[in-house]
Amino acid sequence: MRTVVWRSLSQSQQESILERPAIADGANITAAVSSVIEQVRQGGDSAVLALTEKFDRVRPDSIRVSSDEIDAASGRLSAKMKQALEQAYANISTFHKAQKPQPLKVETQPGVVCEQVTRPINKVGLYIPGGSAPLPSTVLMLGVPAQIAGCRKVVLCSPPPIADEILYVAKLCKIDEVYNIGGGQAVAAMAYGTESVAKVDKIFGPGNAYVTEAKRQVSNDFRGAAIDMPAGPSEVLVIADDSADPEFIAADLLSQAEHGPDSQVVLVTPSAVLADQVTEAVRNQLKDLSRAEIAEKALGSSLVIIADSLTQCVSISNYYGPEHLIVQTKNPRELLSLLDNAGSIFLGDWSPESVGDYASGTNHVLPTYGYTKTHSSLGLADFSKRMTVQELSKQGLELLAPTVVTMAEAEGLDAHKRAVTIRVEKLMQEQK
Amino acid sequence: MRTVVWRSLSQSQQESILERPAIADGANITAAVSSVIEQVRQGGDSAVLALTEKFDRVRPDSIRVSSDEIDAASGRLSAKMKQALEQAYANISTFHKAQKPQPLKVETQPGVVCEQVTRPINKVGLYIPGGSAPLPSTVLMLGVPAQIAGCRKVVLCSPPPIADEILYVAKLCKIDEVYNIGGGQAVAAMAYGTESVAKVDKIFGPGNAYVTEAKRQVSNDFRGAAIDMPAGPSEVLVIADDSADPEFIAADLLSQAEHGPDSQVVLVTPSAVLADQVTEAVRNQLKDLSRAEIAEKALGSSLVIIADSLTQCVSISNYYGPEHLIVQTKNPRELLSLLDNAGSIFLGDWSPESVGDYASGTNHVLPTYGYTKTHSSLGLADFSKRMTVQELSKQGLELLAPTVVTMAEAEGLDAHKRAVTIRVEKLMQEQK
Ligand SMILES: [Zn+2]
Ligand SMILES: [Zn+2]
Repeated sequence: MRTVVWRSLSQSQQESILERPAIADGANITAAVSSVIEQVRQGGDSAVLALTEKFDRVRPDSIRVSSDEIDAASGRLSAKMKQALEQAYANISTFHKAQKPQPLKVETQPGVVCEQVTRPINKVGLYIPGGSAPLPSTVLMLGVPAQIAGCRKVVLCSPPPIADEILYVAKLCKIDEVYNIGGGQAVAAMAYGTESVAKVDKIFGPGNAYVTEAKRQVSNDFRGAAIDMPAGPSEVLVIADDSADPEFIAADLLSQAEHGPDSQVVLVTPSAVLADQVTEAVRNQLKDLSRAEIAEKALGSSLVIIADSLTQCVSISNYYGPEHLIVQTKNPRELLSLLDNAGSIFLGDWSPESVGDYASGTNHVLPTYGYTKTHSSLGLADFSKRMTVQELSKQGLELLAPTVVTMAEAEGLDAHKRAVTIRVEKLMQEQK
Repeated sequence: MRTVVWRSLSQSQQESILERPAIADGANITAAVSSVIEQVRQGGDSAVLALTEKFDRVRPDSIRVSSDEIDAASGRLSAKMKQALEQAYANISTFHKAQKPQPLKVETQPGVVCEQVTRPINKVGLYIPGGSAPLPSTVLMLGVPAQIAGCRKVVLCSPPPIADEILYVAKLCKIDEVYNIGGGQAVAAMAYGTESVAKVDKIFGPGNAYVTEAKRQVSNDFRGAAIDMPAGPSEVLVIADDSADPEFIAADLLSQAEHGPDSQVVLVTPSAVLADQVTEAVRNQLKDLSRAEIAEKALGSSLVIIADSLTQCVSISNYYGPEHLIVQTKNPRELLSLLDNAGSIFLGDWSPESVGDYASGTNHVLPTYGYTKTHSSLGLADFSKRMTVQELSKQGLELLAPTVVTMAEAEGLDAHKRAVTIRVEKLMQEQK
């Protein structure tokens, strides 16, 4: 971990140490992914199966996981595991149900009623990466809001073999269809549909560089599918003062570091003493982690910033805009109204990032890579869309007509003007 | 206008007549726009001015419009025009203020508090196209929500010379800076900043193919800027039964048609009689429009669909997903709960599309080109972002710990587990 004193840096040095590393753009990934998409669009199921065999070195008996297989997963899981997943499910449900929008109806002027109504996105696809360990938490983070929003069809893709934990959560979330497929071929299948895979309107979920690129490509095609948000390496920034426990902070920094070698890890503190203590604690705690090698790589580019004050810590955080922001200060809630540009905020000593990753109730799918400045934490809104409605009474239109006519004239749009005048003339005739 | 009987078509014919025309992809536009962006990034203001001279054939004295010039616009406008713009401003403000989110705070389980907080996007850029007539309505639709959301810096670009109506609305909306620039060079200047033009976080507004492509390119670069939504030709679909006035419907279809030769215009009705009457009325009303030539081109690809029932009309509309949806039936509100996939809905005989374009209060920036299935009508939410917050008490963490530990174990993330256990151990020591 590199320690810097903020005040000693020039503005351009400050900006440059907080700059995100560019993601290798990989023209070869772009081309490989467009070829995969093209193959799936042409060949449907058989192309998906062939690509699965090629990339995942498995040929599943069928693309779709049967409901018997999904049911069987439950029998193989421990009661403890099921209880944990159910508790997480309950908390995430509670928080996302609270996000249901209120109906909105206003009379903007007499006889002019404007409304905002919300509808679920009809069909959504959830992507769950494979890898060495299963990710049931991601199924919860995508499946719960899809269920609460009322999406009419929810499908899930994950590379085979799909872990029991994932199948169990899929059942909890009442996901309609689960497919044994991963990678760019899964994204393409959901974006365009195949004989077995339902075409969806929007695709959610994390993935490797191929999945990310496939999501980007299908979202650039209006016949493809929308996507949740841009992807990037995971990040944490911790703001702490000398009231914080350095062992806690070290554990939090390491949680982030173990996600991947490209994880971004930043501590900002007005206390040079704390900075040293945390650095030391990180070194000690690192030793016995199973993913120590990954964490060590991430720590190589991590940063400890010594600031003048907590106010300056807040400014640095707002400038950086971290995905996860942990605040371990004497009065963390006092800082909340000043904090901006963060995906999810963890207040106080007893709110480690891992509670939000799994089970507090907030969503762990968050904007990263600076996108916190413009994008939101994933929520119910991302599984829905807002439409507006207006209904004018005769009197409402009469009253609003001069405004609309004057503006249509200014914009040189005759027919727009006439759509109003033709109605007003009829009203005047009626009134005779 | 082409009339078809829905029942007489095969499913694939039905799908194909509702398919949107592909937008010419124009590799030359892509290359021209990347060159413009590169020039602006390298050359700053002087590149912007040179490009403005090249494309707009004007060299403004300065990029920034002075506050004196903005003030002077007011003196040149008629009282009638100012009153119209102010009335529209008032209605749009009322509807967008009503969209302010309620603070959200829930205790998902004892001692685990989750919140959702909203922050304005800091700096936003509004693009207003030039052309034969000014578009003050678009300034209202972008400037009002930016103002209500509380964006800290709002800038506006429009090709010179900027009309007085636009400057007047910019002042109403308290837009901070107005620039005399348009096209891809304006988008690039706002995305990356120049000596005179403030770099913004997100760019809003319509434009020609070059502006659209520039928005796409800067939004694909994480150092660029986010954008409002994908663009496409404007559309209207009218659902009407034999209670509707064919002259009103013809006026509404023509309002859409006069927007541009690529406008999509669709009438769906269970009444063959009404279909004929509307076709006839369109022919008559077309004659004396100043933009008759444009409207006629759009009508060339327009469609009248005769359906079996109003229920079928609704299905067709939901499948097509129009930007604007006008419902002129005996009981339009009865259909509302069935309607999906629309940008803005106009209920009843007295709610022509032009009221929504200008002054009812709803936003006229709407998803089109089928994006209504996944995207929302522009609103306050697009000028803000949602962050989540969690704060656990000691007891909250103790209670949630087994769930998080079990899930972290399943996902093979040691450090995530330890961030919890290290805290629980300290709590247990405290309790001794
Ligand atoms: Zn994590
Ligand atoms: Zn219009």
